[in-house]
Amino acid sequence: MAAHAIHHVGVVVEKLEPAVETYERLFGAKVELRRSVEGMGFEAASVLVGDGRVELIAPTDSESVIGHFLEHRGPGLHHVAYAVDDIRAELAHLKAEGAELIDEEPREGLFGHEIAFVHHESVLGVLSELVASG
Amino acid sequence: MAAHAIHHVGVVVEKLEPAVETYERLFGAKVELRRSVEGMGFEAASVLVGDGRVELIAPTDSESVIGHFLEHRGPGLHHVAYAVDDIRAELAHLKAEGAELIDEEPREGLFGHEIAFVHHESVLGVLSELVASG
Repeated sequence: MAAHAIHHVGVVVEKLEPAVETYERLFGAKVELRRSVEGMGFEAASVLVGDGRVELIAPTDSESVIGHFLEHRGPGLHHVAYAVDDIRAELAHLKAEGAELIDEEPREGLFGHEIAFVHHESVLGVLSELVASG
Repeated sequence: MAAHAIHHVGVVVEKLEPAVETYERLFGAKVELRRSVEGMGFEAASVLVGDGRVELIAPTDSESVIGHFLEHRGPGLHHVAYAVDDIRAELAHLKAEGAELIDEEPREGLFGHEIAFVHHESVLGVLSELVASG
């Protein structure tokens, strides 16, 4: 695996704007990008805490995947994303190791990168994302 | 706030050695440090995924804080830690902003840094840690 960094940590919140303000106020976070994904039932903001990146995700539809996560788990940590140089090679490696891929092929993520998710049950309960950054 | 990066992501696992092996196998992780904290009822390993750091934490006592987390939440993401230059100044800032500090004063963390935790209810459900790296 050629992951070279934690690309971001994903956090599910109840409401996006108050969450962004909390990260600005407590941690001096700077908004990098915002995105609303109507079809998926959530909106998100990528905020930078220094060079660290936190993706804040809020449901806009309580019946969405994120809405269900919020209902069942409450707000909090949702996933961790690793930056990788060759996302297709990493996915092939993970599949060969028996990991369950949510995305067998990379798809466009919220913020324009190619991304793919690995099922949390294959990573000890941690929903894990690969982000192509090569 | 002068946080300058995500220092690590903390993950609670059932057993430490199989978890380390899973991260090695799936993500090419390299063990940086290991530590058993008898008095606290857990053991931990810091593993590097590229430059990213994941702290794997396993209870050695089911009645410990980590044992209770595992029982109630299952294995998975536990906390996120930010590297800061001046941990005392950041704690004073967070306190002034009304955040509930688990550690009012920095204490020695697992791997020798000065650290302090901020209560998850003050950070939208995310247990957050400061790590002095200045």
